[in-house]
Amino acid sequence: MIQGLPASDGIAIGKAFVLPNWEWELPEQLIGVGDLALEFERLYEGVKRSKQEIHKLKIEMDETVGAEESGIFEAHLAILDDPVFMNEIKGIIQRQYKAAEVAVKEAIDHFVTMFDLLDDEYMKERALDIKDVGNRLLKHLLGVPEIALPTDAQPFILVARELTPSQLIHLKPEMVLGIVTMVGSPTSHSAIMSRAFGIPLVMGVEGKLPEPIETGDLLIVDGRAGYVHVNPNADTVIRYSELRQRETETRERLQQLALVPSVTPDGMTIELAANISSLKELDSALRNGAQGVGLFRTEFLYMDRSRFPTEEEQFEVYRQAAEKLQGKPLIIRTLDIGGDKQLDYFELPEEDNPFLGYRAIRFSLNRKDLFKVQLRAILRASAYGNVQVMYPLIASVEEVREANAVLEEAKRELAAEGIPFQEKLRTGIMIEVPAAVAIAELLAEEVSFFSIGTNDLIQFTLAVDRMNEHIGHMYEPFHPAVLRMLKTVVAAAKRHGVQVNICGEMAGDVRSMPIWLGLGIHELSISAQSILSVKETMLRTNAQESRFLMEEIFRYRTAKEIRERLERFHAEEAIAQGNIRPGP
Amino acid sequence: MIQGLPASDGIAIGKAFVLPNWEWELPEQLIGVGDLALEFERLYEGVKRSKQEIHKLKIEMDETVGAEESGIFEAHLAILDDPVFMNEIKGIIQRQYKAAEVAVKEAIDHFVTMFDLLDDEYMKERALDIKDVGNRLLKHLLGVPEIALPTDAQPFILVARELTPSQLIHLKPEMVLGIVTMVGSPTSHSAIMSRAFGIPLVMGVEGKLPEPIETGDLLIVDGRAGYVHVNPNADTVIRYSELRQRETETRERLQQLALVPSVTPDGMTIELAANISSLKELDSALRNGAQGVGLFRTEFLYMDRSRFPTEEEQFEVYRQAAEKLQGKPLIIRTLDIGGDKQLDYFELPEEDNPFLGYRAIRFSLNRKDLFKVQLRAILRASAYGNVQVMYPLIASVEEVREANAVLEEAKRELAAEGIPFQEKLRTGIMIEVPAAVAIAELLAEEVSFFSIGTNDLIQFTLAVDRMNEHIGHMYEPFHPAVLRMLKTVVAAAKRHGVQVNICGEMAGDVRSMPIWLGLGIHELSISAQSILSVKETMLRTNAQESRFLMEEIFRYRTAKEIRERLERFHAEEAIAQGNIRPGP
Repeated sequence: MIQGLPASDGIAIGKAFVLPNWEWELPEQLIGVGDLALEFERLYEGVKRSKQEIHKLKIEMDETVGAEESGIFEAHLAILDDPVFMNEIKGIIQRQYKAAEVAVKEAIDHFVTMFDLLDDEYMKERALDIKDVGNRLLKHLLGVPEIALPTDAQPFILVARELTPSQLIHLKPEMVLGIVTMVGSPTSHSAIMSRAFGIPLVMGVEGKLPEPIETGDLLIVDGRAGYVHVNPNADTVIRYSELRQRETETRERLQQLALVPSVTPDGMTIELAANISSLKELDSALRNGAQGVGLFRTEFLYMDRSRFPTEEEQFEVYRQAAEKLQGKPLIIRTLDIGGDKQLDYFELPEEDNPFLGYRAIRFSLNRKDLFKVQLRAILRASAYGNVQVMYPLIASVEEVREANAVLEEAKRELAAEGIPFQEKLRTGIMIEVPAAVAIAELLAEEVSFFSIGTNDLIQFTLAVDRMNEHIGHMYEPFHPAVLRMLKTVVAAAKRHGVQVNICGEMAGDVRSMPIWLGLGIHELSISAQSILSVKETMLRTNAQESRFLMEEIFRYRTAKEIRERLERFHAEEAIAQGNIRPGP
Repeated sequence: MIQGLPASDGIAIGKAFVLPNWEWELPEQLIGVGDLALEFERLYEGVKRSKQEIHKLKIEMDETVGAEESGIFEAHLAILDDPVFMNEIKGIIQRQYKAAEVAVKEAIDHFVTMFDLLDDEYMKERALDIKDVGNRLLKHLLGVPEIALPTDAQPFILVARELTPSQLIHLKPEMVLGIVTMVGSPTSHSAIMSRAFGIPLVMGVEGKLPEPIETGDLLIVDGRAGYVHVNPNADTVIRYSELRQRETETRERLQQLALVPSVTPDGMTIELAANISSLKELDSALRNGAQGVGLFRTEFLYMDRSRFPTEEEQFEVYRQAAEKLQGKPLIIRTLDIGGDKQLDYFELPEEDNPFLGYRAIRFSLNRKDLFKVQLRAILRASAYGNVQVMYPLIASVEEVREANAVLEEAKRELAAEGIPFQEKLRTGIMIEVPAAVAIAELLAEEVSFFSIGTNDLIQFTLAVDRMNEHIGHMYEPFHPAVLRMLKTVVAAAKRHGVQVNICGEMAGDVRSMPIWLGLGIHELSISAQSILSVKETMLRTNAQESRFLMEEIFRYRTAKEIRERLERFHAEEAIAQGNIRPGP
């Protein structure tokens, strides 16, 4: 058994198909002086074909994965238009008399090595982009097929050194049971696509295999735990088959809850909305019965591009989302860039502590030109559904007022241009900076709703970067300080008739349910995958008992006591519903 | 007028003396094969003499600046003992047949270039250490004087490319009116020493001078604003002479307050204690009438060394501090390393967000071996005065209990060894993490006192790294969220009879006085230089009026309104006391 990085959930059991490396035979002979023009011609032709193909792939991806994800192919087109990349290739042809394919290969190697050397997750992704688009160009120059798949038409588990989105998009999802890659990150495009396709994926097993996996080996891929079993014994296969079976049953049982209203046994309700980053995710959220979108992360519209998205491009996505929701609320969060989220085409400053830096609303208020483009797009989409706008990382009353002033300006412009929009567009803010908790009372006078972003709020409150391997374990949602802050926000909001939603990961943790019921939260916004299990928990959790439980919990002094009490409560509710049999 | 980095306060007017660069004539001839042994002999002799001299300097510095600062010379000794540095030199002699002085020069250049390339403030400081000790070695090999000062015995303003602590320690403070350096950082040793000596210093004017400063030029150094005037006109000289005169008068007027009790006109009192990093700073704090030490930053005992300080070394410093205070409280904060504070000899992990990382009490609780050494030293010192211990960066009840458990273990050990200590040593915590504010009520049950570290608390509360050039301006002590958090802490502490001190920079800002009086703070711990101006403000600020003012201020919604109101209050109190004449 090998431990890799879990990148896409699910269990796959099947035969391995090992993807050969991109190793093609390159012409060794130098070209003649008289052939330079011809070689350039070949290069241009290859670039042209590559571009046509990428355009086609983009359309294909629009349809299968979503318009936003397909932005990656714009980045590929931009590389083929990049004079630095192209001049490197042309220079090798012209000065060293090497064939176009050799020049392309050397240019790829040059840039990939350079980017890899930087030892930065982001630049490594860029290196993969160059390799991906460069290999496509190579393929056209050499006239070889993109990817040679097994011909016996049996579904297989794909094993590759790394997998580019271009390769992934060529696969038929029904033929691929699971994927194992030697290198790569769960935040890469390929991982996002695998999750969208529902294909179990484990990455980063390089150096952990006692011997290389061979085509035909029996594999088990456990995409949740990140395990890969190579040629497992019969017991293991049986165990995983049963596990896969139970997961399927649970999924089916939960799926039946999609249309059931989210109400506690004693009649209290919390709306279950979805956090989405793409239209594709919205589809799966709606299938799981989402009652709206509590958080549309628009930064993904800005990433994987070669430039800022236009008003039209943004409007198109927002409008489609609004229409798909058919009147259910769509809360669009304005650009939350910076911190750990960067743009390809716009360099944010390097910072010693990026989490405490130039990001989110701070960026938008400093770049009101860009901010207004986004607000105009959101306003225009508001004519097509129940659209609301939300500002991230708010730390002061001034910031809300300044953002709203830009919004009003956008409204005036649209009105003057005769473009329809919702005049009374609801505005809200993320409560994720401790200052916002302390002045919740003041902020409540400025907006219609709060959405508590528990991830950042917990990080700032505890002064813990949860990605930090040395102290990440101190990140603790059930810390008594966190619960007190939640309580403060809810109390302030209630006094001012302001709605409170929760949109951090804590909302998707079923153990938190009595907290939400006890405090009286209006809406939980969670990932599409979590909606049904959270609903299942709500359906069996008594609201009145939750309120009593919270009174008890606020007397505890440590996170450990609170966590254990919540787990006991959760187990007891589950037992009461017959979902779990009590032990002997 | 040139704008540099203000590094040591005060105004100097005088003639420039430009320190020549360390440019010595090095022998061009290679040595003979038979001279290798002789050359090594010369090198060893130079190293021996350098070490002797450094030992002497260390003792000199102990007496003039303080035992803690002199730790830098230990770092110098460590470089001369470092096999990597010495082998580089020896290799050049042995393989290239170069003279010892040439080899030393090349080795210095090699390491300095390497460290400078890293573009890291910390490594640049290390480069300066190598240059400093390397030049001392060179000096002994060449037999030249350390620094050639002007011979006409007139006080001068020293102008240098950069200034090492070794050079600075050779200067007679009474001969140096001020200092200007081309490069360097206000956090460097040289800057710390200049402040200790009270010499105005402006750093980092490189590239800002229209032409180089020449020996004999008339200079004005404004160490507060960071301005340097080269050959100013008569008006400017008169203006600065007057300013210097007023500063002297103010200093003298304030100095008379040193022995006056710190009491408001209506009889309320707040104790004024000092933040110190060294025994030297304690002396100047006591001269300014400090009523105790509210924060002894022990990390400076750990920095500038080649290894962790022993129990004995720490005990010696803590005991001396306790004795100097003659029964006045001495609050010793346990090691607050990490974040932006690093050790030479112990590598902390590189972190994406070091402020939210592995630091302070998190480090101590992970290295209980080191923590216990410090607690034993503190306990032993407690037999010699009113010593108290304070834990930094506390975010949970568990951390306090865990730290106290180590303290109890140290007590048991000392008791068993028959070593005297204060059994009922008072323990307190820094309140600087937002979580600590939210659970102040719970923490109050665990300790005797709180000390609010406003610097970090404000940074975390607003999610603003104040050193970040892009958003540092958002760091705002008078943010309504900050004031609310202060109020919460004081209220919780009062309910539990726990004392509340303030030890961040906000405490030294005279505009804050009505906040402290209004909330009922027990003690302000501030820099030695700020004590008298804060006391002057307290002596004229009415406590009852401050309470009314705070009620008003808690109704304001923005930092701007609060800041302006505090400034108006401050001006009105000053006018009422006749310190400032009202405008027309």
